[in-house]
Amino acid sequence: MKKVKIYITLRESVLDPQGQAVMDSLHNMSYEDVKDVRIGKYIELEMEDSKNLTNRIEEMCEKLLANTVIENYRYEIEEGVTQ
Amino acid sequence: MKKVKIYITLRESVLDPQGQAVMDSLHNMSYEDVKDVRIGKYIELEMEDSKNLTNRIEEMCEKLLANTVIENYRYEIEEGVTQ
Repeated sequence: MKKVKIYITLRESVLDPQGQAVMDSLHNMSYEDVKDVRIGKYIELEMEDSKNLTNRIEEMCEKLLANTVIENYRYEIEEGVTQ
Repeated sequence: MKKVKIYITLRESVLDPQGQAVMDSLHNMSYEDVKDVRIGKYIELEMEDSKNLTNRIEEMCEKLLANTVIENYRYEIEEGVTQ
């Protein structure tokens, strides 16, 4: 078994109203030193190992997990997760 | 300026219906080798550097960004983000 960590972030050109709302709240709580907030998704998968694991992960990201029109994704595969 | 990456995950004991729904969809798309899906948040902050930066980050996580009753958080501070 492999643990796969997927990070999905909004593309830089895309507005992030949720991040803006969080930043406004932080400013109201006197954390004015926060200059930008971007909110994305973090997905952990447990998958059976296979030869074409990276292909399968990229397919899943493209088809379901990320909206590649407005989002970027990157992933890491963690070794040594025992079954 | 520092870039801070915050990862917020559900505690292990907490059910993740969103992750379950994603896993069901993946199975329907013939990705049966996915055995578990957990969905969390990934937040990027840009902050002015300060001496008590880690304290401030932990405060923000505890007070606003994470719900520590059901969520865990961890963070990384990235060096060398120029202003």
